[in-house]
Amino acid sequence: MALNLNGCVEMIHGGGGRASAELIRELFAQAFDNEWLNQGNDQAQFTLPAGQVVMATDSHVIAPLFFPGGDIGSLSVHGTLNDVAMSGAKPCYLAASFILEEGFPLADLKRIVDSMAKASREAGVPIVTGDTKVVERGKGDGVFITTTGVGVVPEGLYLSGDQARPGDKILISGSIGDHGVTILSLREGLGFEADIGSDSQNLALLVAAMLEAVPSIRCLRDPTRGGLGNTLNELAQQSGVGMQLEEAAIPVREPVRAACEFLGLDPLYVANEGKLIAICPAEHAEQLLAVMRAHPLGQQAAIIGTVQEDAQQFVQMRTQFGGQRMVDWLNGEQLPRIC
Amino acid sequence: MALNLNGCVEMIHGGGGRASAELIRELFAQAFDNEWLNQGNDQAQFTLPAGQVVMATDSHVIAPLFFPGGDIGSLSVHGTLNDVAMSGAKPCYLAASFILEEGFPLADLKRIVDSMAKASREAGVPIVTGDTKVVERGKGDGVFITTTGVGVVPEGLYLSGDQARPGDKILISGSIGDHGVTILSLREGLGFEADIGSDSQNLALLVAAMLEAVPSIRCLRDPTRGGLGNTLNELAQQSGVGMQLEEAAIPVREPVRAACEFLGLDPLYVANEGKLIAICPAEHAEQLLAVMRAHPLGQQAAIIGTVQEDAQQFVQMRTQFGGQRMVDWLNGEQLPRIC
Repeated sequence: MALNLNGCVEMIHGGGGRASAELIRELFAQAFDNEWLNQGNDQAQFTLPAGQVVMATDSHVIAPLFFPGGDIGSLSVHGTLNDVAMSGAKPCYLAASFILEEGFPLADLKRIVDSMAKASREAGVPIVTGDTKVVERGKGDGVFITTTGVGVVPEGLYLSGDQARPGDKILISGSIGDHGVTILSLREGLGFEADIGSDSQNLALLVAAMLEAVPSIRCLRDPTRGGLGNTLNELAQQSGVGMQLEEAAIPVREPVRAACEFLGLDPLYVANEGKLIAICPAEHAEQLLAVMRAHPLGQQAAIIGTVQEDAQQFVQMRTQFGGQRMVDWLNGEQLPRIC
Repeated sequence: MALNLNGCVEMIHGGGGRASAELIRELFAQAFDNEWLNQGNDQAQFTLPAGQVVMATDSHVIAPLFFPGGDIGSLSVHGTLNDVAMSGAKPCYLAASFILEEGFPLADLKRIVDSMAKASREAGVPIVTGDTKVVERGKGDGVFITTTGVGVVPEGLYLSGDQARPGDKILISGSIGDHGVTILSLREGLGFEADIGSDSQNLALLVAAMLEAVPSIRCLRDPTRGGLGNTLNELAQQSGVGMQLEEAAIPVREPVRAACEFLGLDPLYVANEGKLIAICPAEHAEQLLAVMRAHPLGQQAAIIGTVQEDAQQFVQMRTQFGGQRMVDWLNGEQLPRIC
């Protein structure tokens, strides 16, 4: 028997019987192929190095499923690896669970699964266990993927969103808004995505290089949904501090800036999938910047602001024209289903 | 600001901004409340005891969301805890990720989340990290929940589906078919569920008691989707053995038997959510049975068959009338969206 890749997902693929086993064997197990998945049990067993263990989970519901720079498969690997890495951890293992809609083309599913497998192999983090469910036509939307990652924090490190201190410097690893603008433009048929593309990428190696050089980093976070503006507000609130940003220092690529202007979007609130915010003591900021710029994933890195004392935990920004504005929490929603 | 529990899930709750933060704080964080979740980061950090680490993940798409004996919330906790426990591991931490449909009543979501919190507290396994996404009306079905669990296997144990050996005895921890019949009856408005109810429960303590008394157990597996019949075929194939079952020994509650007859279902293929299959060397089977029966979750436990040499890996059964039948892989699907 063989899975017919010209066919579609059927309810029977979620029934736990012969058809489920076939889908798992011929599609998932073949693409992800590793000793832990091949244990063939309902769970994976592995060893972890000593240290604090980190776990992160993310459901991915992005629409459309395929986009310049990636697809839901690669995104679902990068997204969770990055959440693990932001603790300073080395990601070690991934779990993946699929909710498929009846009628979804199996060829598209294979393309997505192959893309996940590639992203996982490039990161050196195997997908060791998983699950598949099928829902009726009209009760899902093609495919949703939930990934969960575990990793281990090297001895002696503790990074957390509550560690920012007045005087600390705020860095970003590269240009903002690429992912969100790509998805919106593609969805609306605007054509901007031809010059942009999602920045979806695995940040774990950049994080490792940064921490090796500057172990005093206070916290890391990737500004995904809600963008840079909202993520900085999260960090300010968690640490009980204010922030002062310099708009001129925040890297925004020209086509992203143009698209945001056309669309009436503020790039500060547009999602990123391959950038990180780092906060570190001022005396190490230049060194950290140099390390980031020397890394392929941080070439456009910049110091974009300073943490300051502020009982009201305001994030403020000096604009390019020299004015001062508030960078508030995102109140509305710029873009649904961006990841 | 407060979340309006008379309201519904809106797209903005998935936007990563203020409304998302409110939903997380006032609904999820309040119900799950624990030191790891309260770290407030995009990942949780914790320590694990030494030993083999186990990870399992499951997406839950059951319809209807509420049923006699549980709901999608408690099921999503039990289901994943049980997958972890079947390796012999003690479950330690859970992650939970939600895909919500726009328009889903927040009061129902709160009921589900409270039920998860209760199941997690009763099991002593905290939900330490999570995610929430929202999809448009008609692109989901109320709520889907993906849970991922990690646990640790005590030193010296190795259980796996490939460890069954000819001569071993096959045990079941209690009556089969309760969960699947409850859901189908409820869905079809047949009324059988009034006398039945799902068997959804956390099996981890039963597993611990079994392994303490009989560490020679070869493998454990919970017969969920596909039921006892399909799960035994999985184990037979994985171990490269055959199996001989005794129909008379397999516990089926009377109302389940009656409902199955009425519905034309074979209880062997009906899903369970609180039962386990154990395979152990024949010389320890009686002792294992006694331990299981002495435990509240195994009072109806029974020895239901024997592993035998069989190159064709057939699962066969002596019927109550003395005949012999094949218990094949489940070919069709008895019940969609059963978990």
